[in-house]
Amino acid sequence: MTEIAFQDFYPDHMAHCYGCGRLNEYGHQIKSYWEGEESVCYFKPEPYHISIPGYVYGGLLAALIDCHGTGTAAAAGYRAESRAMDTEPALRYLTASLHVDYLKPTPLGIALVVRGKVKEVKGRKVVIEEWISANEIITVHGELIAVQVPDQLVQELLQVQK
Amino acid sequence: MTEIAFQDFYPDHMAHCYGCGRLNEYGHQIKSYWEGEESVCYFKPEPYHISIPGYVYGGLLAALIDCHGTGTAAAAGYRAESRAMDTEPALRYLTASLHVDYLKPTPLGIALVVRGKVKEVKGRKVVIEEWISANEIITVHGELIAVQVPDQLVQELLQVQK
Repeated sequence: MTEIAFQDFYPDHMAHCYGCGRLNEYGHQIKSYWEGEESVCYFKPEPYHISIPGYVYGGLLAALIDCHGTGTAAAAGYRAESRAMDTEPALRYLTASLHVDYLKPTPLGIALVVRGKVKEVKGRKVVIEEWISANEIITVHGELIAVQVPDQLVQELLQVQK
Repeated sequence: MTEIAFQDFYPDHMAHCYGCGRLNEYGHQIKSYWEGEESVCYFKPEPYHISIPGYVYGGLLAALIDCHGTGTAAAAGYRAESRAMDTEPALRYLTASLHVDYLKPTPLGIALVVRGKVKEVKGRKVVIEEWISANEIITVHGELIAVQVPDQLVQELLQVQK
């Protein structure tokens, strides 16, 4: 496991995400790291992240697949170019699509393990396969397609909303 | 639009969901209604539900697709049997899988409209097509497969966690 999480390399304007932004004080602030060829994120849901009492609600699990997936996509993009995440030019990724299969109910009250594996890096598109385990039992399987967006486009989006 | 939301018919033990449970004081408490053949839910994200500043984060959009979808599935199940949601036997649905396509960035600061349409009711399985609009522009498309679970199974799950 490296010392600095993927998300801690995001520039400030990409670090406000409720799921993974280090600058969002209300958010989940998930942290993802390489562990060999897989990426990993440990996350303990809050007691109120309920589906039915005792189990984690599906929206949070989808959010973990989303943010761990885009984090892994970013890290994979840099890895594909054999360079560190703090080197230029910066690579920015947004989620194009997300698929989540809920295999079993996910128990609440313990740290979940979210793992990711790069299935494909093709041009601007990165496909990440993911799974979430609780007590070493896989409860969720996911797949995410992330697309690299030019920083210029991100800047334009930020300008429109000002 | 009917007066009582789909979620307000859920029995207490199914009403703690962070996305849609009326008994979860920390959660989103979304409300879904029929509007002709479509179901609709209006939801205004909080200012901190950010992806990049000014836009809604994907995890919340997935959560809306999830909970509006299971609500619509439940309502569709009763409709398929031509009976009201407060009649017995009760029908309980959980999400089996969720697919979300993020078509455009979704602006923050306005009420979003989540719409659903029943694609299929086949035995215990219900397929719901959904889309989210902001300022009348569709920004997200989703599809959800919900499965009806016997209340006995729900009760067993609740017991395990006690």
